[in-house]
Amino acid sequence: MKKIGIIGGAGYTAGELLRLLINHPEVSIEFVHSSSNAGEPIANVHEGLLGETDLVFSDKHTLEDIDILFLCSAHGQSKKFWEENKRPEGLKVIDLAQDFRDESEGYVYGLPELQKDRIACADSIANPGCFATALQLSLLPLAKAKLLPEDGDINVTALTGSTGAGVKPGATTHFSWRNNNISVYKAFTHQHLIEINATLKKLQPGNTATINFVPMRGDFARGIFAVTTLDCPLSEEEATALYRNYYEQAPFTVVSDRPIDLKQAVNTNKAILHVEKHGKKLLITCAIDNLLKGASGQALQNMNIMLGLDERTGLRLKPSAF
Amino acid sequence: MKKIGIIGGAGYTAGELLRLLINHPEVSIEFVHSSSNAGEPIANVHEGLLGETDLVFSDKHTLEDIDILFLCSAHGQSKKFWEENKRPEGLKVIDLAQDFRDESEGYVYGLPELQKDRIACADSIANPGCFATALQLSLLPLAKAKLLPEDGDINVTALTGSTGAGVKPGATTHFSWRNNNISVYKAFTHQHLIEINATLKKLQPGNTATINFVPMRGDFARGIFAVTTLDCPLSEEEATALYRNYYEQAPFTVVSDRPIDLKQAVNTNKAILHVEKHGKKLLITCAIDNLLKGASGQALQNMNIMLGLDERTGLRLKPSAF
Amino acid sequence: MKKIGIIGGAGYTAGELLRLLINHPEVSIEFVHSSSNAGEPIANVHEGLLGETDLVFSDKHTLEDIDILFLCSAHGQSKKFWEENKRPEGLKVIDLAQDFRDESEGYVYGLPELQKDRIACADSIANPGCFATALQLSLLPLAKAKLLPEDGDINVTALTGSTGAGVKPGATTHFSWRNNNISVYKAFTHQHLIEINATLKKLQPGNTATINFVPMRGDFARGIFAVTTLDCPLSEEEATALYRNYYEQAPFTVVSDRPIDLKQAVNTNKAILHVEKHGKKLLITCAIDNLLKGASGQALQNMNIMLGLDERTGLRLKPSAF
Amino acid sequence: MKKIGIIGGAGYTAGELLRLLINHPEVSIEFVHSSSNAGEPIANVHEGLLGETDLVFSDKHTLEDIDILFLCSAHGQSKKFWEENKRPEGLKVIDLAQDFRDESEGYVYGLPELQKDRIACADSIANPGCFATALQLSLLPLAKAKLLPEDGDINVTALTGSTGAGVKPGATTHFSWRNNNISVYKAFTHQHLIEINATLKKLQPGNTATINFVPMRGDFARGIFAVTTLDCPLSEEEATALYRNYYEQAPFTVVSDRPIDLKQAVNTNKAILHVEKHGKKLLITCAIDNLLKGASGQALQNMNIMLGLDERTGLRLKPSAF
Repeated sequence: MKKIGIIGGAGYTAGELLRLLINHPEVSIEFVHSSSNAGEPIANVHEGLLGETDLVFSDKHTLEDIDILFLCSAHGQSKKFWEENKRPEGLKVIDLAQDFRDESEGYVYGLPELQKDRIACADSIANPGCFATALQLSLLPLAKAKLLPEDGDINVTALTGSTGAGVKPGATTHFSWRNNNISVYKAFTHQHLIEINATLKKLQPGNTATINFVPMRGDFARGIFAVTTLDCPLSEEEATALYRNYYEQAPFTVVSDRPIDLKQAVNTNKAILHVEKHGKKLLITCAIDNLLKGASGQALQNMNIMLGLDERTGLRLKPSAF
Repeated sequence: MKKIGIIGGAGYTAGELLRLLINHPEVSIEFVHSSSNAGEPIANVHEGLLGETDLVFSDKHTLEDIDILFLCSAHGQSKKFWEENKRPEGLKVIDLAQDFRDESEGYVYGLPELQKDRIACADSIANPGCFATALQLSLLPLAKAKLLPEDGDINVTALTGSTGAGVKPGATTHFSWRNNNISVYKAFTHQHLIEINATLKKLQPGNTATINFVPMRGDFARGIFAVTTLDCPLSEEEATALYRNYYEQAPFTVVSDRPIDLKQAVNTNKAILHVEKHGKKLLITCAIDNLLKGASGQALQNMNIMLGLDERTGLRLKPSAF
Repeated sequence: MKKIGIIGGAGYTAGELLRLLINHPEVSIEFVHSSSNAGEPIANVHEGLLGETDLVFSDKHTLEDIDILFLCSAHGQSKKFWEENKRPEGLKVIDLAQDFRDESEGYVYGLPELQKDRIACADSIANPGCFATALQLSLLPLAKAKLLPEDGDINVTALTGSTGAGVKPGATTHFSWRNNNISVYKAFTHQHLIEINATLKKLQPGNTATINFVPMRGDFARGIFAVTTLDCPLSEEEATALYRNYYEQAPFTVVSDRPIDLKQAVNTNKAILHVEKHGKKLLITCAIDNLLKGASGQALQNMNIMLGLDERTGLRLKPSAF
Repeated sequence: MKKIGIIGGAGYTAGELLRLLINHPEVSIEFVHSSSNAGEPIANVHEGLLGETDLVFSDKHTLEDIDILFLCSAHGQSKKFWEENKRPEGLKVIDLAQDFRDESEGYVYGLPELQKDRIACADSIANPGCFATALQLSLLPLAKAKLLPEDGDINVTALTGSTGAGVKPGATTHFSWRNNNISVYKAFTHQHLIEINATLKKLQPGNTATINFVPMRGDFARGIFAVTTLDCPLSEEEATALYRNYYEQAPFTVVSDRPIDLKQAVNTNKAILHVEKHGKKLLITCAIDNLLKGASGQALQNMNIMLGLDERTGLRLKPSAF
């Protein structure tokens, strides 16, 4: 049994990680750190855990006692954590914030569909962003095949659930406003573009395609649904085959023959993809659960790979479906 | 044209009042006071008003220049307002908070279905609470007929929309939590029981019936749906006739022959009622829009009555229906 | 008072039209035809009308007795109706189906922002489709200024509410499936592209821009939210000024300085537009209510124009906001 | 490995059962019968299963080849099935319809919290209804302690999700209508009252308490939230202790110290209960997932018990939480 510690235990990604870890057969949870909730049972804070665990939030984090540390705090807090704390030798770290997604300080970018072999050997993982996961999974096979349009446009609109905005309540997550509402935010400037472009340029170095990314707030709690269009020389059959082939060894990434919908992925660690061709344009749709494949599920998948476990351990989840 | 001032202009009830007043043919809005939003166009704060008005929030309230003042601040603020401000003679006041619902200081309880004549002569109106409106409309005809069960139980469960909780975001109005969720709060202790019981005891002085009121948070933004059961000697036909008769002069309160649903009332000033008899039990269902008949619509209805206008002026609203 | 008849009275657009007409000061409703619902009160079928009207569905349509006929049946039924019925002289017709949107048989395409003068003189109006309205309003100013990209791409993704799919229940409007779900349908092939392209080519004859239109099913009942991106030589300020100028005489089409959201338009006849520039790309967002500006509201606006009334008569609607 | 067959494979309960069985370590699925979908991959019909299984619907059901049969057809179809098919000796049957909930023909009523020992020995299980599960779990400890009010009232209002109405689309499951809507149906007459009363009278034979049950359609897809009030001599502490004690051996039924919400139970097989005392009244709230503890999860729990497995096998589900 590997021993787990969690920093930033009161947020949404920590909650989802706990809902997963509790049923994972190869780990035990040593501490869940949250200074603001210290002493409180985690089931009082994290929906759905009542009756599943007696764990209590702690204001201590004894890094020496654990094998794997998950950093679930806000962006910027992970770097700060390592300024204030000494990392014991042998401790494996999975950071869910964006602090090390540039692979600085020895962190490996934890997108298994991109580099499972590097993850398997890593001590430190920078877990991808939620939009970044959906967009990269939509484009990896093309980039690998050097088929992104040189100089051209990659047009993406994607909707995210309210859990993507975090647990702290605000005007755009107020139920009265968000319910039945749709809006655009951070158009063309979303911070995940950095990690997406880094990956695509690594796979297809010459490409100067521009990703025109319009993120949208959806009126649902879980999920990302991304729509991508770009010029592509492949036929629909060729493109589908390219995607199928690329994701052959990816247990969670599924290419559908038929048009897809968001709830095919909700409450699973799956990414569901579908490819259509219309004229010159390739249309790629992608559905993930932002808290699972887009965050905590992928973090656990990375842990499994690092530990040499079957990638799906603890991640054979019943889809909520409805 | 009567001149209107609004205090507490940034909240939900003020927003709804503004959406109504803008199309009211007999009034003009002189000021909308909000110290925190002073200088900001009201359309930046109140959803749906873009292109309808150039009004700007003010940090001044010149009570001398207006005919009618709406107090839309939080509970307790209305009393405080009158401690700090002098009321000009001739100024009519409609208070949407609960500060004067006990009819203290000359305020008249503004439930037109109870006492339209008193409202017509009043200078100061205490506008009823949202749950209080739905529950009283469910029971007024029985209380008037002295048919509330002496010593018995009146069982009420009622769901409210998230706008009932106000504009300030919090844990139970976070979209991630509220979406698709149902919960109970303030069971048996909701503050609206005070005004409800006051009315019922006024109409049927001897009655000692207990209202067992279980309020629930619904996963919708607008509306209240109330389910009431109690022992009743009337047949279904007699009860329906009693309700029809009682509400004959009430232009917004409609008794339906058929089972009802919440959206029949949403975005209207109507209260929709339905009565069924099962064994000894009378079942009364009631649907209102908490921001309209449950707050700002009723406030405007009271204003119309006070000004001698047709009660429906400015309140012939298109239901949103969907 | 003009006399109105409605064919196809049981559908969503007829319901919305009735909710509007009932409060319109210059018209009376003579008949609402529905063979399947003949004899039934319309308030039993159309949500929100209880207590507002005693109208009953009829299986007769006496065209001689009316001034204006609204055709609210399914696509294809309007042509069929005129094969089976004689049109009295002087009868004005507004068709909400797509049968005459090619302006065949003397019908004028009823987009006031495009050709209010032609509508004013018309006897027969082909009311635009809902997506077609949102997309044309997003592009009209550019097309008029001959600024659509020659040979280039116009990328559009747009979400529609479930009422766009009509009253007949089916798999993709089942609440269990649709709730919290997002999906793509008719990508690149939506039938509204025909009328959109016809308009754009009329305004900017040389242009061969391709509209890459990806329609999406949203998990809300009312509204369309459209996101358009295209290459544009104008700066953000120039583009905003172009849109403001173009829509100066359009009482319902509002250009916002700030990013918009869907509910700014819901339950109103407004179209809310916003323009941003990012690099070479112009981003245009547009929000309408699919049943109002996208259907019955625009039909009524067309009627007002035809009758020489103020365009906003009967259309000063309180936004639902929440 | 036990071999499983499913009849009525295209409905919601069969879909949920399949989502569970696919990850159950001790069973294999031999056939999923659906005459209307024969030949179709089940992942095309049941949301969330893409990439999880290659199972295809069959029009054959070879009862000789299986150990356990789940009957997932509509009410009335189970009796009909046995009129038309011979039951092989040794075949265990779990019926999710209401056909044998009266324990006729040797069926045992499959509520583990009531009679786990009888279920363990049974060959035929009649799986309880969804409302029946929530209401019985709310009342079992009191009935066992003979504390239901003699001659008194048990007042219950409970909301159900749209999946409770089945996969066939209709007016009250149309998204346009159901979204943000609340309504009452089958007040005082719901068919589940039969099985509820049967259980309560078995545990507390003398009692003649009347259950005044008002079922409501909720605007969510999954879940039941039930509110029960009744006269009770116990204090809040005593009542809580009674419930805790009664459910000590029930791994899925959890008594909460704090007020509960529906989503604590969604996508789990848990029943979450909370007890409050106000004056003479005991308030019991209960949340379950109607498709899990209210149907297919409980069916699987019954199967586990029948097979002598740990009751939780295949049912340690990650809550969806949001």
